[in-house]
Amino acid sequence: MLHHDRIARVQTRMREQGIDAYLILTHDDYIYLFGEDRYQPRAIIPAVGEPIIITFRGEEDEVRSAFGLKDVKVFGTVGQQIKDVVDSMRGLFQQGGHDGKMTVGVQMGFFTPAFLLNMFQKANPQVQVVSIAPVMDELRMVKSADEVAIMHRAADIADAGMRRATEVLWPGLTENEVGAEIEYAMRKAGGHGVATPVFVNSGIRSRWLHGTVTDKRIEVGDLVVIDLVPRYLGYCANLCRTFVVGTPTEDQRKIHAAYLKAQQVVRDNLKPGMKIKQLDDLAKAVFTESGYGDYFVSGISHSIGLMFEETPAPTIHPADGNVEIRTGMTLTIGHSILAVPQVGGVRLEDTYYLAEDGLQQLTHASVELELPIAIC
Amino acid sequence: MLHHDRIARVQTRMREQGIDAYLILTHDDYIYLFGEDRYQPRAIIPAVGEPIIITFRGEEDEVRSAFGLKDVKVFGTVGQQIKDVVDSMRGLFQQGGHDGKMTVGVQMGFFTPAFLLNMFQKANPQVQVVSIAPVMDELRMVKSADEVAIMHRAADIADAGMRRATEVLWPGLTENEVGAEIEYAMRKAGGHGVATPVFVNSGIRSRWLHGTVTDKRIEVGDLVVIDLVPRYLGYCANLCRTFVVGTPTEDQRKIHAAYLKAQQVVRDNLKPGMKIKQLDDLAKAVFTESGYGDYFVSGISHSIGLMFEETPAPTIHPADGNVEIRTGMTLTIGHSILAVPQVGGVRLEDTYYLAEDGLQQLTHASVELELPIAIC
Repeated sequence: MLHHDRIARVQTRMREQGIDAYLILTHDDYIYLFGEDRYQPRAIIPAVGEPIIITFRGEEDEVRSAFGLKDVKVFGTVGQQIKDVVDSMRGLFQQGGHDGKMTVGVQMGFFTPAFLLNMFQKANPQVQVVSIAPVMDELRMVKSADEVAIMHRAADIADAGMRRATEVLWPGLTENEVGAEIEYAMRKAGGHGVATPVFVNSGIRSRWLHGTVTDKRIEVGDLVVIDLVPRYLGYCANLCRTFVVGTPTEDQRKIHAAYLKAQQVVRDNLKPGMKIKQLDDLAKAVFTESGYGDYFVSGISHSIGLMFEETPAPTIHPADGNVEIRTGMTLTIGHSILAVPQVGGVRLEDTYYLAEDGLQQLTHASVELELPIAIC
Repeated sequence: MLHHDRIARVQTRMREQGIDAYLILTHDDYIYLFGEDRYQPRAIIPAVGEPIIITFRGEEDEVRSAFGLKDVKVFGTVGQQIKDVVDSMRGLFQQGGHDGKMTVGVQMGFFTPAFLLNMFQKANPQVQVVSIAPVMDELRMVKSADEVAIMHRAADIADAGMRRATEVLWPGLTENEVGAEIEYAMRKAGGHGVATPVFVNSGIRSRWLHGTVTDKRIEVGDLVVIDLVPRYLGYCANLCRTFVVGTPTEDQRKIHAAYLKAQQVVRDNLKPGMKIKQLDDLAKAVFTESGYGDYFVSGISHSIGLMFEETPAPTIHPADGNVEIRTGMTLTIGHSILAVPQVGGVRLEDTYYLAEDGLQQLTHASVELELPIAIC
């Protein structure tokens, strides 16, 4: 289903910013504008006129009937796909009566491959490529009621995954086995897979900046950081908890308590109009007071939606730290690992929606540190 | 565990090709050279001397003890990570007594983000960035006995996933539910997740070039294309089968039989020394004879290993079609969807190892089209 209203808003902003066409190469904006997903999302939004979808010929009937668009380009090979993009660009260029350079926006995030962009630039030397962020970010940063409803569902799925984690986290199981149970539980709860594989970082690996799973077995006393990013209809929720299997040490309790407090202080003080990097100052103050200030990693919060981390995402694009928080945003609090030498790592992250009347927490998993080992 | 032998071979090839440093940004080469994985694999291989790993400070102890390297750069923020890479480059540049441009290789595949490369180039205007493919591809294309053993295991995991598919594919279940069961079965069989989410493309969606899962329910008579790429210790196996739930139509049987024959003809005629694109000619001849030549999509085969599709991967990089097949390669046969209007799509793909004494099939799932519906 085509989101005509969103496409119109994108085109208005493109014209304001002198962008002649937006070349879509990534899933998030394709879903945002076309309401469906494809393995290779390829489309062109001209500043004026109908969008052009570029799709494999086997998918043509489906795309035409779904959208009623007259301009569906069909390719049979990857070579032809590139050629179609180029031809469409040339057509737009000539229509527009350009005599100078045509300006084409592309997304410049993690999911735009360098070689694809290079290939496109070589084939289109008359085109000036610019980032589409100034057009798309403003629109996507503020979520509609529909989007928030989907994200509520994604958050429920994350909660189901974390409940499963507390059931299966047990000495002797590998990180991979625990991760498998969590991913399966989230799919059974209705999730459409994960934006990033579930992290189960145990023992010394709890100190990782991000994570993965390995065949390392969970041991009694391990700190275990579990981070989930399920998707539902393209939208993500992000939830992280840290556990100790068995009785935590005093130091483990202390860093966990410090993190809980930092998360709470950020949550209680977050207001529209603040720059997102100001949240780091709030968190750092708590960690400093607790004696862990030196170990704080900036980037306690990021926006979330069709991407796990989307604008503002200061740990990917440092300039995003200056983006102002506004009503209607969905964001996480708790993105920074607190990795303390000799003790381990702790993280507690939740997903929130900043409504007119304040912050709503979407994820609700227990923040209990200790997972008692029952006597069998 | 550092693969000293591989690093030495990489450095020899770098010197031959005038590349001063290889900046690693992707998992595959990081695993290939360092024998472990991190969420953000960042390292520099100088043409002479020890590799430099750039890692988060929380991971420092672990990296130092694993590798015994003296040059581990530690970062606390993403900004510092980029700075460390740049500083290491400057250090190498000065050591080398360069007065001209320093040449740095990077991988130019799907997983090198355009913005990261742009950021690096802006910070290092004295550096000429080139593709590292001429160095790495020759080494990675021919698998060692260790690698083949791992891929055997990955193939067994794929087979376990496809067995589960035949158990759970049932009218009324959604594609997503079927996909969830398959991914879980592969994890239970020892897999470390998937290189791409399992595709379950049913009905009209069987004609997709690639795939995904949706909430569409499986219907009696649907063609269902199921494509699996599990990972084991970083290595992939690729397996695809097509099923009809219930009794296939005559047309469905015909396109399935044509695909089976094409796969067999390619398999029987594949020889070292052929260009990989010649396999397309073999497949196309079978499809043409069966009356489906117009629907053939080139790219019947690609190499596989630490990447789902690695060099030669002609559907990503068309020039790869000219790469010669050699003994020691692992590759798939059956990558092209055969999408026939009004009928649907069929694909049958397996993973092979080209041993000294001929082609060995690593995946072994049944090629039966029909999944009978039992009377309950």
